[in-house]
This record gives sequence, structure tokens and C-alpha cells, in this order.
Amino acid sequence: MTVGELSEGQILRGILDRLPPSTAPVGPGDDAAVLAVPDGRVVATTDTLVHGPDFRLAWSQPFDLGFKAAAVNLSDVAAMGARPIALLVALAMPDATPVSFVRGFADGLAAACAELAPGCAVEGGDLTVSDTLTIAVTALGSLDGREPVRRSGARAGDGVYVIGELGEAARGLEVLFRRFTDAEGAPVPVDPALLDSAEARALSRQLRPRPPIAEALEAAASGATAMMDVSDGLVLDATRLADTSDVTIAFDSATLGDDPGLALDGGEDHGFLVTFPADAVPLGRRVGTVEPRGAEAVTVDGRAWTGRGGWDPYRDWDAGRG
Amino acid sequence: MTVGELSEGQILRGILDRLPPSTAPVGPGDDAAVLAVPDGRVVATTDTLVHGPDFRLAWSQPFDLGFKAAAVNLSDVAAMGARPIALLVALAMPDATPVSFVRGFADGLAAACAELAPGCAVEGGDLTVSDTLTIAVTALGSLDGREPVRRSGARAGDGVYVIGELGEAARGLEVLFRRFTDAEGAPVPVDPALLDSAEARALSRQLRPRPPIAEALEAAASGATAMMDVSDGLVLDATRLADTSDVTIAFDSATLGDDPGLALDGGEDHGFLVTFPADAVPLGRRVGTVEPRGAEAVTVDGRAWTGRGGWDPYRDWDAGRG
Repeated sequence: MTVGELSEGQILRGILDRLPPSTAPVGPGDDAAVLAVPDGRVVATTDTLVHGPDFRLAWSQPFDLGFKAAAVNLSDVAAMGARPIALLVALAMPDATPVSFVRGFADGLAAACAELAPGCAVEGGDLTVSDTLTIAVTALGSLDGREPVRRSGARAGDGVYVIGELGEAARGLEVLFRRFTDAEGAPVPVDPALLDSAEARALSRQLRPRPPIAEALEAAASGATAMMDVSDGLVLDATRLADTSDVTIAFDSATLGDDPGLALDGGEDHGFLVTFPADAVPLGRRVGTVEPRGAEAVTVDGRAWTGRGGWDPYRDWDAGRG
Repeated sequence: MTVGELSEGQILRGILDRLPPSTAPVGPGDDAAVLAVPDGRVVATTDTLVHGPDFRLAWSQPFDLGFKAAAVNLSDVAAMGARPIALLVALAMPDATPVSFVRGFADGLAAACAELAPGCAVEGGDLTVSDTLTIAVTALGSLDGREPVRRSGARAGDGVYVIGELGEAARGLEVLFRRFTDAEGAPVPVDPALLDSAEARALSRQLRPRPPIAEALEAAASGATAMMDVSDGLVLDATRLADTSDVTIAFDSATLGDDPGLALDGGEDHGFLVTFPADAVPLGRRVGTVEPRGAEAVTVDGRAWTGRGGWDPYRDWDAGRG
């Protein structure tokens, strides 16, 4: 059975039946949802996953895609210090998409909300037909009376911390492109029996990232001066934070684990880069110091970073395959 | 120059430079926006336009698409009785998309906000690569202390009103499919010189709908018991409202203009279907009465409606063409 054989209403019921019930003043089913944000401010962000540039169905299970589409948006809400309260999910699918895809996708959305942001629910969405499977999620959050933690608040003398993992998701992506492609470079399904435990772990982080949302909210409550989601790689994201705050972020490579290059350049981990003043009780692990703005936005061991600055193997792939 | 030749940051600046400045506590540029909703409730909706099923570049100018993508979402917010305050715009484009497309699209977004919902701004978004041009917009609104106007509030004895036009957008779509396709059925650019004034008007309503947002908010403040955006055709949408309210909507075809069939079945006008109690001062034009629930959700002149119930010529088109 494919989605092309069902009405929009039937597909929608198949999704809503698998999601936790709405707790909003007005949930799914009207022209729009109404959500409670008691302190009078709502945090809002949107992020899209497109088949081809962002994922391959040969590698990602439907559950993985639902989980990841939720997780990457929940992390952006949490990076402001806000508690995620709702997702709106726009799903554009080819008519030939199996109905089982929609069920697995909905289960992944529900699992991500339950595990990463309990109380957050899917409160609205949209279904359309498209030649290209596309998942556009909007996440909304409540600050619960706190001030938002922006990218612009880092001050010289603050400590630089990372909450969450670095480089694991990029390592997983490398496993996919190196081990699970055919002679023409097209993706082939992952055989778990071929993976050692480190590879399996890295692959899981790539396909189903678990941003530490609760810790990010704790960091906001503990006096973080700046925070952001690390999605495009630590150096690239730290450069944005440094430029916005008009400071230099000085990393110490000895704090970055076995493969500092991967930690500095690998994207998609969806951990958090946080700065804390000296008198705060910080969370995460310290990876550097905020310095007055120098010639470089970011330094590693006192020098400019000459790493590859992010690696995106999806970028030039033919979206028609896999 | 195409978007594939520019960085995401360069494309984004080209968009933001053409939009009115943010008035939000935190606008574009951080992990998420922060928006003020003084009464502690936010209204949220999302709607997607996909090249192929929803529009054709041969027919729609980039400005039209920006305008329409904003308008169809603004109307859903207003249908709850809420004032639109912000849009989040996710744009997935092929690398070969001309940069001029992005500029025209941004101008259309800005024009729709200025004309339909002054004070509403684009406060966030996302840019991705896709084989299929896809526009996913989320609109957020503030109830400003009013109760939301839901689909479930219609009561027997209420008058049924329409604010806005009916059938014009469908007439415009028919003009496109009948007059501006080649021998194989592929779309060809519209030559305005070939249109009479009625056709030109209908085409404009199809390509650049202008939902009467201000009147919808006035209806909410004037005691409307139920309201919804008319996007899929009057009968189909009234059926949803009638089912949710557990009533029958009885239309009088004499109130529906020269072509009642088109008014009842034509979609995409993005006017508003509203019910008012007898003691309210209604807005719009009266088209029927709410009756106790009978065998039919909707009647026309006392009988079940046997019209086509919506016409979607895009549905079976090959999305690869035009």
C-alpha cells in the first residue's frame, strides 16, 4: 500500500494515531494550533531534510528520519535555553511512498519527543505530494521566564564548554560513504554484521542524533553567557559565535579526544557549544577559553585552524539514487 | 548567476536585505527566533508549496510564489482570529535556480506581509538544496487576549457568511490549464495580451491570492462562533466545519453569484467561512444558515450537493515539466 492510494485525511490519521495526544489549548485539526507560552515569548525555528542532499532512504530507516527531523529542530530550540513544546511537521512525499514509511516516521517523531523533550508533541503539520521526499519541521519552545541565551553573549575570560559528543556523527557518515556504497557510488543498505562496536555507535549518532536537550536547559539556568547548537562542525559554528560576540574562541586540542581534527570539523553531532563566566558552575567539558577579539575568530592551540572546515559528501551527489 | 554558485550565507543576505527589519526580541541569525505573544498563547500553522503539484515556474513569477506562500499561511493564522506576527520560511532549491528567483521571491514575501498583515515579518528560515523547488512556510500569530475561533463553534440558528471571493482562483487555474499549455500539455508562459479583464483578474487571484486578513480579525472580534480558511473549496471546507461542530451547513445558491457551482467547488480563494449568531453584527455576505445536524453535513438549496467536490488538475501532472 502506498500513500498515493490514500486520501490526505487517511494518511494524517495514520500519523496522529501513533503520536502522543496533544496537550495544547488547540491541537491538530483546526486551521492552526494554539500553544501556551506562559511568559509571553515563543522560541521558533525551522529545519528541513531533503532526500539526496541530507539523507538516503537506502541508509536511513523511516524511524531514523522521524527521530532526526525532530532532534535537529529540538536542539535549536534548546540552544536558546528554551524548553521545546511543539513540533509542526510538513511532509512532502512521492505517491509511491509506502504507507509503512509514514508509520515508521511517525514512530520516530514520537520517540524523539519522548526521549529528548518530554511534553513536546506534534501539534500541526502539512502533507503534500512531491517527487523529492522532503521533511520540513518547525519547533517551538517556551523560555519559562528565563532570558534567551544568544550567540552574542560570550565575553573574554569566559570558559568554552561542549555539552555532548564531537565527531561521532561525521565518523558515522564516513562509514556510510566508505563501506555502504556500490561500485558506482550509490548507497546500499547497511549490514550491521559488518560493523564493529565503534562504527555501530558512530552510525547510530549520524542516523539518529541525540542532542542533550536537558543539559542545554540546565546550562541556560546555570548562567551560560552564550550557547549554540553544533551542527556544521565545531570550528565553523564557533566562528559564528565568535563573530557575533566579537571575541576569539581559543580551543585547546588536548581536550578534544583521540581525533581532534574530526572533533573540530565534523558536523551533525547536535551537541552544544556554551560559554560560562568564571563564577558560574559550568556543565559539559571545557575545551577552551574566550579571548579578546584577535586576528582570528577561532584558534586551536594558539594558531589559526587549517583543517578542512567541514566535509559534506552529500553535496555533489545525484539525488536520484537510493 | 545561480544559487549553486553562492554560499548559504550569501543567499541568506540577499533575502534578508529585501525584507523589512525584524521587530522581534530575537530575529533571524541565532539558532531560533524569539517572538513576543503578550497574552501567553501563540497560534502556529505550516503549509508547503511544491513545484509540480502546487505551482509551475512557467506560470508563476518568483514574486507571485513569495506572495502566495506567505498569503496561504497568513490566512490560516487569521482563521483562528489571530494577528500574524512572524513567518519562518524554508526554501529548498535546485542549484541551478537563478539568484534573481530568490530576490523576486523575497520581494513577494515582503509585499504579502506589508499588504495583508502589516507588522508581520520573516523572523527565521532555512535554505537547502533539492531537486524539487519546495517552499515550506510556518506562520505564527498572537490572539491579543481574544479566544481562538475554532471550527467547532457553529450552532444551529447561526448565519453562515463568506468573507472574500469564491471561485476566482479556480477560474484562474482553469485559464492556465486551458489556455497556457502546449500540445503535450506542458505549461507555457502567460501572455497577458491574450486575457480579457475577467480572465486577468481570475489569474491574479490564482497566482497571488489576497486573503482578507483584517476582515477575518474583525469577524473574530465581532463574535464569530466558528471560522475557517476556504482553501479546498466551499463545500469541502464547510463539510469539515459542519462535522467538527456537529451541525449541517445549508447554503442558498442564489447568494453565490453567477456560477454557484464554481463558488461551491473551486478552491484556493483563501477567503473565510464564518458563522455568526443572530445577535452579532456580521461581516461578509450571508450565504446560508446553520441547521441542526441532519443526514448531510452540507446542503445546497435543501439538497445534498452532487458537484464535483473539488478539482485538482495539478494532481496527476508530471512534476518534471515546466
